[in-house]
Amino acid sequence: MIGNLNSILLENAVDELAKLPGIGRKTALRLALHLLRKEETAVFDLGEALIRMRRDVRYCPRCHNITEEPLCPICSSSRRDPKIVCVVENVKDVITIESTHEHSGLYHVLGGLISPLDGVGPSDLEIESLINRVEEEKIQEIILALSPTMEGDTTNYYIYRRLEDKPVQVTVLARGLSIGNELEFTDELTLGRSIINRIPFLNKS
Amino acid sequence: MIGNLNSILLENAVDELAKLPGIGRKTALRLALHLLRKEETAVFDLGEALIRMRRDVRYCPRCHNITEEPLCPICSSSRRDPKIVCVVENVKDVITIESTHEHSGLYHVLGGLISPLDGVGPSDLEIESLINRVEEEKIQEIILALSPTMEGDTTNYYIYRRLEDKPVQVTVLARGLSIGNELEFTDELTLGRSIINRIPFLNKS
Repeated sequence: MIGNLNSILLENAVDELAKLPGIGRKTALRLALHLLRKEETAVFDLGEALIRMRRDVRYCPRCHNITEEPLCPICSSSRRDPKIVCVVENVKDVITIESTHEHSGLYHVLGGLISPLDGVGPSDLEIESLINRVEEEKIQEIILALSPTMEGDTTNYYIYRRLEDKPVQVTVLARGLSIGNELEFTDELTLGRSIINRIPFLNKS
Repeated sequence: MIGNLNSILLENAVDELAKLPGIGRKTALRLALHLLRKEETAVFDLGEALIRMRRDVRYCPRCHNITEEPLCPICSSSRRDPKIVCVVENVKDVITIESTHEHSGLYHVLGGLISPLDGVGPSDLEIESLINRVEEEKIQEIILALSPTMEGDTTNYYIYRRLEDKPVQVTVLARGLSIGNELEFTDELTLGRSIINRIPFLNKS
């Protein structure tokens, strides 16, 4: 344990840093003492960047991605295909999928997954606005790109049921072997699924 | 790599967080997105705590520990023995040694170690003020509690030479086996030193 730090200011900074995920009190103390040795302007820049980000970041009214513009850069880009919309859990997943350069359409950020255990229902998420988009924007394909977990599958199913009678194709990310992983270290569920969903060799589709 | 984050504010926050030691850009992004989901007041509290700590923390004029008081709580405590002063590299070491509850005297924080390779000489550290304290405060024992490294040993030796002709006993922390560690995993230098400095069994001193 960390004893008395002799300074309420240091103590406060450590307390606040230790609230961050994955940062315990020992790491928080190390970070605070690091900042104490830095220029005052450097610490001011860090504090201000965090405060300004939280205060001024806006969300795209269409896809709920973060942005500072009236529409996010992806929604307002003329090079993206507005007929294909990829549904993701959060902003980080937009960044992750963008880094693959394999999705040329738009996004829809749900802001979470349905999780009855955590008290998160469909009305807590941006699902209604997704249904509206499908109706208003003539979307042809909805790609469900949620995590392959209980919550992800529940949310996938809920959205699928809500879109069942709409003229839109609903697809889901392929599940199978991770590229580069040994077969013997793949879990049975994934391996079984990859057998069921096997595809023709050299299939380019 | 992390692609375009769609938001300059987020990008800034990630850049600033990634400057912290041990925090890469992926972790920085995770922290920033965590903060985006938090209450605005919570993020304000964090940013302000860091800025205020750096701006308002003062150093004890006697031992150079951090404090908000005219003298630090250790220097101003009547229950500490002012005749024994423990010399440490930095503020964190004061906290570490305090947590052992084995030192009842005062401290002297050098603010670093002599390191010619890094361009840190004796005049960059609080060594002159230590010599002055020895002369003015009738200190009887100086405990050198620096890391057992090249820099720590160099600094130990420099301070020892500066205090050689003063009426003060200079001691250094014992080096030997770590309690709870297997003998076979102790490095040879430490093991050799622990043989040379062996002490009578059941010696309580």
